[in-house]
Amino acid sequence: MSRTIYILNGPNLNLLGKRQPEIYGHETLADVEAECRAEAGRLGLEIRFAQSNAEYQLVDWIHEARETAAAIIINPAALSHTSVAVLDALNAFDGVVLEVHISNIHKRESFRHHSFVSGRADGVICGFGTQGYTLAVQRAGRLLQKQS
Amino acid sequence: MSRTIYILNGPNLNLLGKRQPEIYGHETLADVEAECRAEAGRLGLEIRFAQSNAEYQLVDWIHEARETAAAIIINPAALSHTSVAVLDALNAFDGVVLEVHISNIHKRESFRHHSFVSGRADGVICGFGTQGYTLAVQRAGRLLQKQS
Amino acid sequence: MSRTIYILNGPNLNLLGKRQPEIYGHETLADVEAECRAEAGRLGLEIRFAQSNAEYQLVDWIHEARETAAAIIINPAALSHTSVAVLDALNAFDGVVLEVHISNIHKRESFRHHSFVSGRADGVICGFGTQGYTLAVQRAGRLLQKQS
Amino acid sequence: MSRTIYILNGPNLNLLGKRQPEIYGHETLADVEAECRAEAGRLGLEIRFAQSNAEYQLVDWIHEARETAAAIIINPAALSHTSVAVLDALNAFDGVVLEVHISNIHKRESFRHHSFVSGRADGVICGFGTQGYTLAVQRAGRLLQKQS
Amino acid sequence: MSRTIYILNGPNLNLLGKRQPEIYGHETLADVEAECRAEAGRLGLEIRFAQSNAEYQLVDWIHEARETAAAIIINPAALSHTSVAVLDALNAFDGVVLEVHISNIHKRESFRHHSFVSGRADGVICGFGTQGYTLAVQRAGRLLQKQS
Amino acid sequence: MSRTIYILNGPNLNLLGKRQPEIYGHETLADVEAECRAEAGRLGLEIRFAQSNAEYQLVDWIHEARETAAAIIINPAALSHTSVAVLDALNAFDGVVLEVHISNIHKRESFRHHSFVSGRADGVICGFGTQGYTLAVQRAGRLLQKQS
Amino acid sequence: MSRTIYILNGPNLNLLGKRQPEIYGHETLADVEAECRAEAGRLGLEIRFAQSNAEYQLVDWIHEARETAAAIIINPAALSHTSVAVLDALNAFDGVVLEVHISNIHKRESFRHHSFVSGRADGVICGFGTQGYTLAVQRAGRLLQKQS
Amino acid sequence: MSRTIYILNGPNLNLLGKRQPEIYGHETLADVEAECRAEAGRLGLEIRFAQSNAEYQLVDWIHEARETAAAIIINPAALSHTSVAVLDALNAFDGVVLEVHISNIHKRESFRHHSFVSGRADGVICGFGTQGYTLAVQRAGRLLQKQS
Amino acid sequence: MSRTIYILNGPNLNLLGKRQPEIYGHETLADVEAECRAEAGRLGLEIRFAQSNAEYQLVDWIHEARETAAAIIINPAALSHTSVAVLDALNAFDGVVLEVHISNIHKRESFRHHSFVSGRADGVICGFGTQGYTLAVQRAGRLLQKQS
Amino acid sequence: MSRTIYILNGPNLNLLGKRQPEIYGHETLADVEAECRAEAGRLGLEIRFAQSNAEYQLVDWIHEARETAAAIIINPAALSHTSVAVLDALNAFDGVVLEVHISNIHKRESFRHHSFVSGRADGVICGFGTQGYTLAVQRAGRLLQKQS
Amino acid sequence: MSRTIYILNGPNLNLLGKRQPEIYGHETLADVEAECRAEAGRLGLEIRFAQSNAEYQLVDWIHEARETAAAIIINPAALSHTSVAVLDALNAFDGVVLEVHISNIHKRESFRHHSFVSGRADGVICGFGTQGYTLAVQRAGRLLQKQS
Amino acid sequence: MSRTIYILNGPNLNLLGKRQPEIYGHETLADVEAECRAEAGRLGLEIRFAQSNAEYQLVDWIHEARETAAAIIINPAALSHTSVAVLDALNAFDGVVLEVHISNIHKRESFRHHSFVSGRADGVICGFGTQGYTLAVQRAGRLLQKQS
Repeated sequence: MSRTIYILNGPNLNLLGKRQPEIYGHETLADVEAECRAEAGRLGLEIRFAQSNAEYQLVDWIHEARETAAAIIINPAALSHTSVAVLDALNAFDGVVLEVHISNIHKRESFRHHSFVSGRADGVICGFGTQGYTLAVQRAGRLLQKQS
Repeated sequence: MSRTIYILNGPNLNLLGKRQPEIYGHETLADVEAECRAEAGRLGLEIRFAQSNAEYQLVDWIHEARETAAAIIINPAALSHTSVAVLDALNAFDGVVLEVHISNIHKRESFRHHSFVSGRADGVICGFGTQGYTLAVQRAGRLLQKQS
Repeated sequence: MSRTIYILNGPNLNLLGKRQPEIYGHETLADVEAECRAEAGRLGLEIRFAQSNAEYQLVDWIHEARETAAAIIINPAALSHTSVAVLDALNAFDGVVLEVHISNIHKRESFRHHSFVSGRADGVICGFGTQGYTLAVQRAGRLLQKQS
Repeated sequence: MSRTIYILNGPNLNLLGKRQPEIYGHETLADVEAECRAEAGRLGLEIRFAQSNAEYQLVDWIHEARETAAAIIINPAALSHTSVAVLDALNAFDGVVLEVHISNIHKRESFRHHSFVSGRADGVICGFGTQGYTLAVQRAGRLLQKQS
Repeated sequence: MSRTIYILNGPNLNLLGKRQPEIYGHETLADVEAECRAEAGRLGLEIRFAQSNAEYQLVDWIHEARETAAAIIINPAALSHTSVAVLDALNAFDGVVLEVHISNIHKRESFRHHSFVSGRADGVICGFGTQGYTLAVQRAGRLLQKQS
Repeated sequence: MSRTIYILNGPNLNLLGKRQPEIYGHETLADVEAECRAEAGRLGLEIRFAQSNAEYQLVDWIHEARETAAAIIINPAALSHTSVAVLDALNAFDGVVLEVHISNIHKRESFRHHSFVSGRADGVICGFGTQGYTLAVQRAGRLLQKQS
Repeated sequence: MSRTIYILNGPNLNLLGKRQPEIYGHETLADVEAECRAEAGRLGLEIRFAQSNAEYQLVDWIHEARETAAAIIINPAALSHTSVAVLDALNAFDGVVLEVHISNIHKRESFRHHSFVSGRADGVICGFGTQGYTLAVQRAGRLLQKQS
Repeated sequence: MSRTIYILNGPNLNLLGKRQPEIYGHETLADVEAECRAEAGRLGLEIRFAQSNAEYQLVDWIHEARETAAAIIINPAALSHTSVAVLDALNAFDGVVLEVHISNIHKRESFRHHSFVSGRADGVICGFGTQGYTLAVQRAGRLLQKQS
Repeated sequence: MSRTIYILNGPNLNLLGKRQPEIYGHETLADVEAECRAEAGRLGLEIRFAQSNAEYQLVDWIHEARETAAAIIINPAALSHTSVAVLDALNAFDGVVLEVHISNIHKRESFRHHSFVSGRADGVICGFGTQGYTLAVQRAGRLLQKQS
Repeated sequence: MSRTIYILNGPNLNLLGKRQPEIYGHETLADVEAECRAEAGRLGLEIRFAQSNAEYQLVDWIHEARETAAAIIINPAALSHTSVAVLDALNAFDGVVLEVHISNIHKRESFRHHSFVSGRADGVICGFGTQGYTLAVQRAGRLLQKQS
Repeated sequence: MSRTIYILNGPNLNLLGKRQPEIYGHETLADVEAECRAEAGRLGLEIRFAQSNAEYQLVDWIHEARETAAAIIINPAALSHTSVAVLDALNAFDGVVLEVHISNIHKRESFRHHSFVSGRADGVICGFGTQGYTLAVQRAGRLLQKQS
Repeated sequence: MSRTIYILNGPNLNLLGKRQPEIYGHETLADVEAECRAEAGRLGLEIRFAQSNAEYQLVDWIHEARETAAAIIINPAALSHTSVAVLDALNAFDGVVLEVHISNIHKRESFRHHSFVSGRADGVICGFGTQGYTLAVQRAGRLLQKQS
């Protein structure tokens, strides 16, 4: 069974650490990737880490993951609230899906309270800052262990 | 007058026949294209058949159709429910527009019950499986006959 | 297995071709029946074609179809939007159900956008004019073929 | 041009004068008919006065009126709030349509505040008691005069 | 004072025991009638038991009950959710009204959660299977006893 | 008992006959006043006829009517939909209140479908053109006759 | 198999017979308990009858019932409309659940029309006065008979 | 600065591992407590672990935490959706608040999609099973580290 | 600092004591003014007491208060529910604002449950009858004391 | 007639003066009690002052008040927005009910704008700080005076 | 053709520059008028500039403009959100209508997001500060040029 | 400080002047660009003018603007109503944001009345035709002047 996890990031996350630090903190996406790789290493897992501002790119990566990955950790960012296409792609993926939001979306504008992806995700973590990513990696590790 | 029909397919339809067969069946998009070409051949029509996961690509194809096509058959998939851009592109197209959904969207989640494209389409067919495409080709044939 | 299809028509469809031709066209219900019989003949199917302005009559015909028909094609007209009784009758029918609307109901008043029958139908076709009936006969033919 | 007016009454109006007099008063439907005939006589108009508890019967009478009447005065009673079929029949009628309610429906339960028929009627009168009928006859007389 | 109870049944209940037994059970309407007669006999009451798929027929029977019955037990079935005409007829009836649903309508589709009839009924029983009818007869017996 | 009727007109009705004749017709408010006086004369009633664009003026006139009038016929125009102050003034008036709209407000924008005044009026007439005024005078005449 | 039925009563029912008799009648909760014991005795069933104003106490009793009872008859009173905790406790109970309301909650304030408990109950009876309890005991008796 | 974390559990969680294992899994609350103590030990933190079915008890514990704890991890269970009292208590607590749900509440009934507590929590984790607790302990550890 | 309080009254309050005494009581506005003056005298405050049926007049008085008053006590009556202009005027006033309603608006029609003014007021008192005015004067006295 | 007033306080009010002083001020509940006793003393009234975080405790105290008190002044705090049980208990109390909120709930989160208790209270005062309590005592004094 | 533009200002705008400068800036309405006159002078246009806190005054000015003006620039302020009377007056005006708001109303309270006037205006400009007025004058100049 | 303004255009605006001239006029996007460059030249500003049908492209350009531009003028077209990603990108931009729509979106379909971008924009101009662009350039010029 595959030991690879896709960690996918949606629009504007390339600016992480560079914009609105009062909401998103000071770490960059490269920092997050490094921490995820470290955590995954401890658990014997492979990581494919990527970011895009394009919905279709996320859809394509999820399709790719159908062949090669056991789990997807996704921070869909703005697309959480607007993209049925990402939801449908995840519906076509058979593995574990974990959704991460850096901020607590329930304390922000009401249109951020609903995420299409949450209707498919196995678990959702928000407001845990960038630590949410590594905790999600731990969760994926646990679930893959159970299944193997 | 043009005898060409654009048949456009939205996000995730490249997976047709490979995912959730209990909803979408076992035929692939290539199968659908072949059946449409056959049906169009019988009616003396040309087909341009395409699929994309990108909203902008569908918009571009619809713009292209303004110059070259008499009808558009479109399965906007997830974009049905979220894309005003596709609707606006179709609003700028003067020919026949027919909307196809393979499954009966009215029996699924409530957010799938509304399609922006239906506000522009001349006709909508859903839940007829992949046969919906060839029936739409027949309809386009009939309408083009009337106009010519 | 039965080779009979019921084609049922709801309130005001007896006026077809005589009222609001900009919405419903110029063909009469007798014309539609003739086309359906021709299409059914090509496919080796029997047709029972009927219209009523009374909800109870449609319910009774659907009950009758439970014993004698393999499929129901229904244009519930106004009752689409208001009749749970017709829906319940269809829920008690085990065969194929296809819903037809001559006009695209999604381009009309908002109360026409919801059809109770769509919650039971296998497929829905609207805005294909009276051709929607014969396309539905084709669909029924295909589905009965698969089942037999 | 036709000088005939149909005055149609919906469900439960056969009980007029016999139930809930605090809402509907003490006059019977026969009394109303007599007053309408008197008023129509003064204006040189013919009256066809009828009541039914069945939606289909009202639909049939409206269809009949398409051939023979210049105006329909209708008290759809309970069907005001639930019948698209009656609305569609009236949509297929080209003459004057006036809607009458004996009580002021806006002071009763909220589901009585909306009438499908009001979306087609030329005028609506409610809460004028049974006098609303004869005032509607006067209005029809005025309008037919203008048209002739 | 009258000792007669009307037990009225709405659309599709003629199929009871023949359709969807997982929802409605295996007893037929004739079985229910027999049980009601037995229960009524024990309580010294008369029964008038009837079923119709037509709204107007139920309205007519309720009008009839105004003259001859002390209580109405009604399972309006689909009409619960759509008929103001039945409600208005019951509003014109002065006796006891008890509403019965065989299944628990609150566990089904949301449009079944609201019943117009409940706004008039003295009591409502649902999800007690066909036993709901005989329990309603018991209740009617108790109430008639009090009044006499 | 007073034989005086106040006929009050709200904002923009001073333009009657001068604006949007496809909605409001060609008669001026002076024409309407003349017709009302004629009708009232036939019935032995006095008329106080007035128009204002100011909400407070209508409120003041209604207060005045408390002392001197037996009925108020009011076309609140735009204030129908927005003024609780006019409603409260009418709530403090003990006589007959009849509401008139020249056009059928139920066929116009949805914000015109609700009138605060209808929650107080004894009767409402709309879409009867300027004839609605004289019919309301007739109604007031009938009601005052009954009470006296 | 257990022959015990829990009959649980929510907040304010200790006042039964002492408050608002026009809504709840004159019987006390002790009267109800006595009638239930009598009915249960006839059917060979045991009764555990209790009332509390505390949500947690009802939750605790339902947990207790998981070990010892075959059915729960519950009148959650005010908690029907506000307590997910009671619903969750009932979701963890495998036996029969019957919901009783003394008054017809559908004729009262709109916030009383929805009961969380109805989403779990097998049956619901309301507006049958205190007789609803003994009818529910009969129903439980019938269902336990079937299962044993 | 305090090194103590309160881990509070709401109604029905005493049944954990004993009910609906398809939703909540097979671990008991004692298992969860043990895992939390182990994780806290690794991080040099103290744990106060408690469960109650009573809203007031949770409120009292949160008040107590104001004096003695640096963080609260809370699984409010059913009270998430209904308790403003728990929210207000947390609003009066100055430390870190993390909300845990064992299941993904966004995939369950719609009334479970909203949590009052999320409006106060720093972070929310749901659908991570019982592992959500220990991940929350890790998060608290990280945050307390930053603050000290 | 100013010791003057404006006490402003909206539409129809000139009728106080003369209309609907079951809602508003028997005291007149002059009585209220006298009581307020007495109370203010005890507290060493000046009163400016006024009433108008015109929204613009209330706006003008509030503007005037910006220069001369330390507090405004306002009973906006009907304008509470409809006037953004009054709200905006109050938003431009820097002193204390207290809102008074004689009746408990939460027990009346639902459109009276929302007051635009409450979004600006420091305090709101309703259902305390005309005593609400003097209690508000007390409150203003206390607050001005604190500020000075 | 009883001269006793119950002053009841809901969840978290035990923290008064200790939490969120920008919302609730610096006075403690003991201070409030002292002021109420002083005010009551001046008016010859007895006070029973209590606070609880438990809904059932408030219900019990209200039941107790039925026997011994002439008025209840209640600050239901969080329970205002969620407790039908408290409302029902108050519905069973025949005396005066006054509702107090220290802050102006209409300027806070939208879920605080609705209070179940307001549907029963004779008067509501909010945003008057802790002074609201003594003003409510004054009001109770006035009302008891009238009744005696 | 007329070269006159009416520039009308609604309630509270007389305070411009004197209240809430963080929202509305420091310029007074006299400053705005001077800038508009300057801009109009450059374009060969006449200006009629006015402000009122009274809805009826705005209605009267708009009526006046029907005879004398080619365009109306209106900042309806609070009346944007509440006045159908102003909308109706503008509907009776045949020339150009431009709507100006100094602040961006879409970033303020939700009740400010809807403007009745926008349903009639040719263009809307908001959040451009007082410069919005002169830009609207430019637009009017351009449009009048085209028409002449 | 930067003197550069980005002028960004969303989906389908490449068709400007070629489609639906009754809504969008006859000017092409190249015409608009030329006018903007002219206006900017007069004000000593640089322009970067671009159009894309792809959401991600707009997001990328906004990111680019963070480094190089002082203001963004954006006509998000269809994306106004559907894109949180564009909003989030603008939220990460510190300069001036002005939103332009050629048509008055408030007079079109209701889904066009809400723009996510308006929640971030400093100003919004719609229905000023293509002139809206140059007026926005003027506004940007004024604002940049103030800041420098």
